[in-house]
Amino acid sequence: MAEDLKRRKRGGGRAGNAARRGGAVIEQMPWNPPVNIDRPTEPLGPEGVQAIHDGAMRILEEIGIAFLNPEAVEILRASGGCEIDGENVRMGRDFVMEMIAKAPESWTITPRNPDRRLTIGAGHLNFGNVSSPPSYWDMKIGRKVTGTREMCQNLLKLSQYFNCIHFVGGYPVEPQDIHASVRHLDVLYDKLTLTDKVAHAYCLGKERVEDVMEMVRIAGGLSHEAFEATPHMYTNINSTSPLKHDYPMLDGWMRLARRGQGLVVTPFTLAGAMAPVTMAGAVAQSLAEALCAVVLAQVIRPGAPCAIGTFTSNVDMKSGAPAFGTPEYMRATQMTGQLARFYRLPMRASGVCAANVPDGQAMWETSNSLWSAVQAGANMVYHAAGWLEGGLIASPEKFVMDCEILQHIQRYMDPMLTATGPDEIAVDAIREVGGQGHFFGIQHTQDRYTTAFYAPFLSDWRNYEAWEAAGGVWTPARAHQVFQDIIAGFEAPPMDESIREELAGFVERRKAEGGAPTDF
Amino acid sequence: MAEDLKRRKRGGGRAGNAARRGGAVIEQMPWNPPVNIDRPTEPLGPEGVQAIHDGAMRILEEIGIAFLNPEAVEILRASGGCEIDGENVRMGRDFVMEMIAKAPESWTITPRNPDRRLTIGAGHLNFGNVSSPPSYWDMKIGRKVTGTREMCQNLLKLSQYFNCIHFVGGYPVEPQDIHASVRHLDVLYDKLTLTDKVAHAYCLGKERVEDVMEMVRIAGGLSHEAFEATPHMYTNINSTSPLKHDYPMLDGWMRLARRGQGLVVTPFTLAGAMAPVTMAGAVAQSLAEALCAVVLAQVIRPGAPCAIGTFTSNVDMKSGAPAFGTPEYMRATQMTGQLARFYRLPMRASGVCAANVPDGQAMWETSNSLWSAVQAGANMVYHAAGWLEGGLIASPEKFVMDCEILQHIQRYMDPMLTATGPDEIAVDAIREVGGQGHFFGIQHTQDRYTTAFYAPFLSDWRNYEAWEAAGGVWTPARAHQVFQDIIAGFEAPPMDESIREELAGFVERRKAEGGAPTDF
Repeated sequence: MAEDLKRRKRGGGRAGNAARRGGAVIEQMPWNPPVNIDRPTEPLGPEGVQAIHDGAMRILEEIGIAFLNPEAVEILRASGGCEIDGENVRMGRDFVMEMIAKAPESWTITPRNPDRRLTIGAGHLNFGNVSSPPSYWDMKIGRKVTGTREMCQNLLKLSQYFNCIHFVGGYPVEPQDIHASVRHLDVLYDKLTLTDKVAHAYCLGKERVEDVMEMVRIAGGLSHEAFEATPHMYTNINSTSPLKHDYPMLDGWMRLARRGQGLVVTPFTLAGAMAPVTMAGAVAQSLAEALCAVVLAQVIRPGAPCAIGTFTSNVDMKSGAPAFGTPEYMRATQMTGQLARFYRLPMRASGVCAANVPDGQAMWETSNSLWSAVQAGANMVYHAAGWLEGGLIASPEKFVMDCEILQHIQRYMDPMLTATGPDEIAVDAIREVGGQGHFFGIQHTQDRYTTAFYAPFLSDWRNYEAWEAAGGVWTPARAHQVFQDIIAGFEAPPMDESIREELAGFVERRKAEGGAPTDF
Repeated sequence: MAEDLKRRKRGGGRAGNAARRGGAVIEQMPWNPPVNIDRPTEPLGPEGVQAIHDGAMRILEEIGIAFLNPEAVEILRASGGCEIDGENVRMGRDFVMEMIAKAPESWTITPRNPDRRLTIGAGHLNFGNVSSPPSYWDMKIGRKVTGTREMCQNLLKLSQYFNCIHFVGGYPVEPQDIHASVRHLDVLYDKLTLTDKVAHAYCLGKERVEDVMEMVRIAGGLSHEAFEATPHMYTNINSTSPLKHDYPMLDGWMRLARRGQGLVVTPFTLAGAMAPVTMAGAVAQSLAEALCAVVLAQVIRPGAPCAIGTFTSNVDMKSGAPAFGTPEYMRATQMTGQLARFYRLPMRASGVCAANVPDGQAMWETSNSLWSAVQAGANMVYHAAGWLEGGLIASPEKFVMDCEILQHIQRYMDPMLTATGPDEIAVDAIREVGGQGHFFGIQHTQDRYTTAFYAPFLSDWRNYEAWEAAGGVWTPARAHQVFQDIIAGFEAPPMDESIREELAGFVERRKAEGGAPTDF
């Protein structure tokens, strides 16, 4: 593949094309988070939905969930709806259903650029970048390396650049060259200055959560009241499956709930390991773990904006390795979607793969997972671009490749593709051409050809000979060049200088105070 | 990539694994053509279906189709339902609907091995190998080359080997080292001896069609009566869009219709070139071209087993290059599926890509096309394994990679994945593990773990370090090794020696007679 990289340069490359076009690195689709117009794929009948619901309720009623946070336990005790035994909390289905009914079916998140406001729910389909890998891989380095701030910044730049990335999740790679006590300050500064899209806080201790909320507030130029009036950011917590929510996750969850920010809970239930080997059981357990966190949020602030996530896959029973983008993964995602609609809650899913490099396997696994998110009616799709090795590696080539698929999905949801008015059926155009000619030159085509079809930025549609003459470049090497060109030409979104100074001042002050504890 | 190939060998490789396992090259799923259990994806409402139907009918009524075969024209004239003007045939919608109502909603094809019988229709989902590329590419050769008989044989061996390939389409690559006059004899001999699955005849002149029917009859050990009693093979014809059916295609179509063999008609309507730039118009034209061939078959033999195919995509309006696996392609396939159900006819779709090599682009394009075939409710999926460069290249690596996706689809259709009985919800197992343990060791897992999850034969689920230690092999290089191992260990399916001799004798005699004319 190194050979491919070399040859790529010889061909003049995309940078040359960009220069000829006057600056645009690629021709991408405009910012336009899609609305899912398809009926979801529903493998369960009504009795199947009821069976999984009943399973989730029995887990909550009969077995209970451990809340490893005394404050959360006391809040649930005071709610009057739970039976408490130490850390174990059981809750009856009537109470669960009463509480989750208080959660809105859809809600918005407004980042510092209000044009980037997202709707979570109501058929909206929002894509986010890869989050949290400790490692990084790109074609130039050619091996797995530890994440750095520069790599993190570059992936943030890709997240801002691509219009098909609608929100910026956690750290797109862990910048391990920044000390953990101040890492959140530097990365959030980078995130809030390099992007103007919806941002996220990790629940890793109260100081980090509070710092991030404060930085998002400052970046938005908001009063405390305005910040709390509507979601401006969100968090995502994972239960510690089976059947536990840990201290820092619950702590952050409650802090965001109190301030009315977005709350996503995503159990990580690998069937056969931390959940039953049967997919319906793994989904039922995942829902139980998710719903009890939603209950907690509703007790704290009725109407708190919540979404339930799914991360139900399976392990390879020979090796214990997690599997992603498999048939089981797709069905679990679709089943969770059916239950999310049953509970009238927005849903989060993911774009994932087990592959270690951005090759064919990476694409079939990621494609399966992304399309199953679409089929499930998911509203937020995490890790939608850039993920490799089960989330342990972030890759810019993979990021660029995934964005081509995300654009496919956006275009696929354009009702124009399946319009059936007289102009689209086009009997007159067919009559005009008859049996002898072709459709290239006729007016019906001329009026529409510039917007009629999806135009890829990465797929190479030339024939073999033309492709070979241009260097014979395989997809990841083309993606590498696109990545380099985007970084070279990147311009940060505008930010008021006084806000930037306030943000920098906050970071400086909090660093001087020592940042956050690192005993997690 | 050549480097990857070299490293692959160092790791001991799949052949070593195969030896240790006692001969099986890969662990693949058993022969079991799936039934599609999903509700199709339906972008059109009832009025959209009606609009496309009305468009197709108006094309047939008002514009007409050129039948470039005098015999076909006379048959349609004699039917009393058509208006004939030279080669142009128009037919009213009542006549069309009356004729296509005679076609069965589902039918079977029984090849020489009756265990390989396929049902075409009724929710069945059958996959076929790549057909008809003039060229070949593999990683060892490393460039595009002209197809040969050996390459064709190797691809036939893959078609037989993989249980997820259910029928053998046309020549998996054109063996251009065999003279065109006798090519069909040699390839059909290879196909009928190296495989025992459903086979196909090209409509390329009466001699070829009759030869192939006779060879299929001999291979099946059938009397002429038994051969004609039920389909034992099929053909696929393409209209010459816009609005024409050519002489040899119609000639073969009528010959197979008379003898009760399977009939698939697949217009090749690229929107913007030989069909309207609007997808609904391209679909309407495709349906008109397909339905009139079905009418012809029903006039000749009421109840003749027919299916309509779709090959509606678009051209890149900048270059004229055909696009495959795009959002437009997916929607066109789904719309055609809705209309196929409206007409109560089985449907054919395809697995396609524009990519020139088996890389990421190849996989997202192919994945999009294969899943859209599933979503459309297609019953036959042509080119489901091995296609590159818009059908101009056959590749064994691509074949092997595609089979991993086909196995995904087969497994995805297993109702076990979404079963919701008490054993699957598994509340007792969840109670048993509680909040402290894991599910690996419990009886519920032990009872199910060997069959609970899809087991890939090509995906590498190891972590990066283990993958790297084993040579760091990218997907196409792994696929190349699987290909080599399959060929090295291939065993042809059994055939009665007297039948083989009869088949060889037929080939010899027809070669002595000069084969078929080559003036097509």
